[in-house]
Amino acid sequence: MSGEQELGITESKEYNTGEWYAEVVQKAKLADYAPMGGFIVTRPRGYELWERLQDHLDGWFKETGVTNAYFPLFIPESYLEQEKDIVEGFDPEVAWVTHGGHEELEERLAVRPTSESIITPYISDWVRSHRDLPMRLNQWASVVRWEATETKPFFRTKEFLWQEGHTAHATDEGAWDEVMTRLDQYAQLYEDVLAIPVLRGCKPDHDKFPGADTTTSVEALMPDGKSVQGGTSHHLGQSFAKAYDVTFTDEDEDEQTAYTTSWGLSWRALGALIMTHSDDQGLVLPPALAPEQVVIVPIYNDENKDEVLQYGSEIAAELQEAGVRVHLDDRDERNPGFKFNEWELNGVPVRFEIGGYEVEDEEVTVVHRPDGEEVVEDRADIAEAVDEHLDAVFDKLYAAAEENLVENVRAVEDVNEILGTIGQHGGYVKTPWCGDEACEEAVKEKVHAEIVLVPMDDEDVPEAQLEDGEALELESNECTMCGEPAEEVAYFAKTY
Amino acid sequence: MSGEQELGITESKEYNTGEWYAEVVQKAKLADYAPMGGFIVTRPRGYELWERLQDHLDGWFKETGVTNAYFPLFIPESYLEQEKDIVEGFDPEVAWVTHGGHEELEERLAVRPTSESIITPYISDWVRSHRDLPMRLNQWASVVRWEATETKPFFRTKEFLWQEGHTAHATDEGAWDEVMTRLDQYAQLYEDVLAIPVLRGCKPDHDKFPGADTTTSVEALMPDGKSVQGGTSHHLGQSFAKAYDVTFTDEDEDEQTAYTTSWGLSWRALGALIMTHSDDQGLVLPPALAPEQVVIVPIYNDENKDEVLQYGSEIAAELQEAGVRVHLDDRDERNPGFKFNEWELNGVPVRFEIGGYEVEDEEVTVVHRPDGEEVVEDRADIAEAVDEHLDAVFDKLYAAAEENLVENVRAVEDVNEILGTIGQHGGYVKTPWCGDEACEEAVKEKVHAEIVLVPMDDEDVPEAQLEDGEALELESNECTMCGEPAEEVAYFAKTY
Ligand SMILES: [Zn+2]
Ligand SMILES: [Zn+2]
Repeated sequence: MSGEQELGITESKEYNTGEWYAEVVQKAKLADYAPMGGFIVTRPRGYELWERLQDHLDGWFKETGVTNAYFPLFIPESYLEQEKDIVEGFDPEVAWVTHGGHEELEERLAVRPTSESIITPYISDWVRSHRDLPMRLNQWASVVRWEATETKPFFRTKEFLWQEGHTAHATDEGAWDEVMTRLDQYAQLYEDVLAIPVLRGCKPDHDKFPGADTTTSVEALMPDGKSVQGGTSHHLGQSFAKAYDVTFTDEDEDEQTAYTTSWGLSWRALGALIMTHSDDQGLVLPPALAPEQVVIVPIYNDENKDEVLQYGSEIAAELQEAGVRVHLDDRDERNPGFKFNEWELNGVPVRFEIGGYEVEDEEVTVVHRPDGEEVVEDRADIAEAVDEHLDAVFDKLYAAAEENLVENVRAVEDVNEILGTIGQHGGYVKTPWCGDEACEEAVKEKVHAEIVLVPMDDEDVPEAQLEDGEALELESNECTMCGEPAEEVAYFAKTY
Repeated sequence: MSGEQELGITESKEYNTGEWYAEVVQKAKLADYAPMGGFIVTRPRGYELWERLQDHLDGWFKETGVTNAYFPLFIPESYLEQEKDIVEGFDPEVAWVTHGGHEELEERLAVRPTSESIITPYISDWVRSHRDLPMRLNQWASVVRWEATETKPFFRTKEFLWQEGHTAHATDEGAWDEVMTRLDQYAQLYEDVLAIPVLRGCKPDHDKFPGADTTTSVEALMPDGKSVQGGTSHHLGQSFAKAYDVTFTDEDEDEQTAYTTSWGLSWRALGALIMTHSDDQGLVLPPALAPEQVVIVPIYNDENKDEVLQYGSEIAAELQEAGVRVHLDDRDERNPGFKFNEWELNGVPVRFEIGGYEVEDEEVTVVHRPDGEEVVEDRADIAEAVDEHLDAVFDKLYAAAEENLVENVRAVEDVNEILGTIGQHGGYVKTPWCGDEACEEAVKEKVHAEIVLVPMDDEDVPEAQLEDGEALELESNECTMCGEPAEEVAYFAKTY
């Protein structure tokens, strides 16, 4: 089977995670590197994942009152600077447009790093009365942040695709509901579509979005023990509304200041997806996002070729009719082994193998991508059976990711143990914390772990979603780092 | 009815077309002007039109083998310059990024004005064998062209949204099929979705896309007599393939150079839509794009209010069930007259009026937006009847636009008459032409009209699509401008 060596994954997920990730992204044709460091080219198979993710999230947004809009790619420097009223020492790492054609611009334009500073003034214009609220705007766009880091497709790129929602509300409560609605939708996307369980929580005060009252996030634990911030939803309180004069007349004709939120999820979700489920054979995809959900590989010789291909195309037609994304790989120039490997590399959740025996016995051999489990199904029931197999693949992916998460949340009440646990196992370490950034710093400088979340309130500990959450209760009421009274429970982890 | 004055359109489409257009765009909440000249903010009602347009076109693309991808927003200057091999004196009017954060970049980056120069090198990388062809990539993206013109939302903006398709083929014929497939899909979009008949043709050689063998376009005639280039599809021959080394091994293992195409359609289509159908009452939308297809306005007094609203909400539920986008305007603080005006301004194709009489007689008064035609329908048949009314509105819009087009294609064989006809009527003037740019210039400098298209071949005159095309035959075989033998038939028009 020549060509196989070149086609397959050569790096090990366990021992060379970074190189393995880069190899999967490229060999599964999801993305390539652009000529400029920090940029990537998203190939059709990668972009299709993004489109399907968008379909889910955009549908939920629209069902819950969000309207899409499009704001300019560029933001005048003076608009960005207006945020200085809110954010002390604001110093944007942005790409600057200084010339249009041959002319130098009078005012530099920032390529949008995020759009609060251009969207909020328009919300201010458009909102007059309480009847205009809530106003919920979202845009799907690309943003640029000029950070000098190593390129990691979907995880770390100077330009990335995302959605950014911006809303205004008459009340603080309305804004809070909004923040939580979007956070829940992000969690739903990870859990129900990407098959990745997440923890929900708040960021520590010193790590909030600049100007925000509260930043909430969903966090996903990768198999290498690092946490990915999977999406953020910010309660901006009235700070942006005051800076940009977002006011409205209430029912009594009195002028009030609105409350605003913003929330965003980027293609980093695709990075988390690839990193979580894929293996040393290549990409592994949950059925909801897979370009092909089922691939049919016919196994034939000169004598039974027509018969086998006919059998395969009838099955393909029946599945397609039933709404399944199916592909019959009838290439004559490749043998079945090559095809098995290639479709495993491409992450197709379910493979049908059909050969002389299957045709004769009116059966189909069904193989699950994640674990290679083989089941023989009757041909007659195949359209029904396939849904069960797709669900079974989803369940296997979710269960493996959940096991990784559950096993890697640890309660620790000793600084050295924090360092040791994170150094040895990665994952989340929860510990009592006084709330002081210096106490985070003490851990950070030794193991490069930071506080990725704090529970939203006492009754809402993140791992309450996990079955054995009770085992993780903390006993001490003192900050593990400094011994002062603990205000919060901090979840430390290494991050992407 | 206070507030109506402020709400309604004050400019005249016939006498102040430019001001009227700007007023419709803003008052129907489609777009606002951005702080920087040349940029706009696309509001939810405008963006929804774009989303529906995308849904149609993207669906047709995918049915015909196109895959979406995403290439970087920025293109290194050296990549753009590589086009100089193809295009003499290439001098891009682009926005230049010169700084990232506080650092000056080593190489300037152009904000993409179009993506041939970044996409073609990747196609070159990805195409190895004839089995990789045709390769069809498309991206939905924003592009920036730094042209110093007055801002006209959707028609003239420095940043605009579009799709750009880029394909490679093994044969010249394959590339031509591609060019025509996309041109036909553009025509289908205009004619079947936007209710705007278009002419199809080629651009004169001197007005082709730089480096193209042939540029084809669809052209739509606006009510003010100017032509809009509605979408372009370029046969790039082998020039880009040679410059960027897009080669493949054919079935005999010989190396061959591919043929490439590119094709694009921008939000200018929305400009044409607004300009074509709207009137002095505001926006007029064809049903396929309208955010609301039907608005129900209840007319009630204190005594029958509950009854009328109940009647209205039952109808709304029934229509929604039938897949119609319907809105019941039950606002208590507005009277029916205000609502009529507002929904007319917003372009809702069909209005249902329901009051005491309608409830009593189990009827619905149906009003068509374009001409105010009123029809009374039985309540029982309303779900079926509504489709006919939506179709009727579409037909009225198309018929009016077609009439404008048919009446404004004129055959002229005298230079002064060309000038006079265009000056007086606008529209298209067809005339024999030698093919020399100087002869276009002779007309252009006097009436600012240019050659917007030439027929693709003798049997494919654009207005063959129009019923009375025969009446427009030309008699002379000499160029109207210079008297040399005529090579082509030129269609002159003023343009947007
Ligand atoms: Zn402390
Ligand atoms: Zn001439």
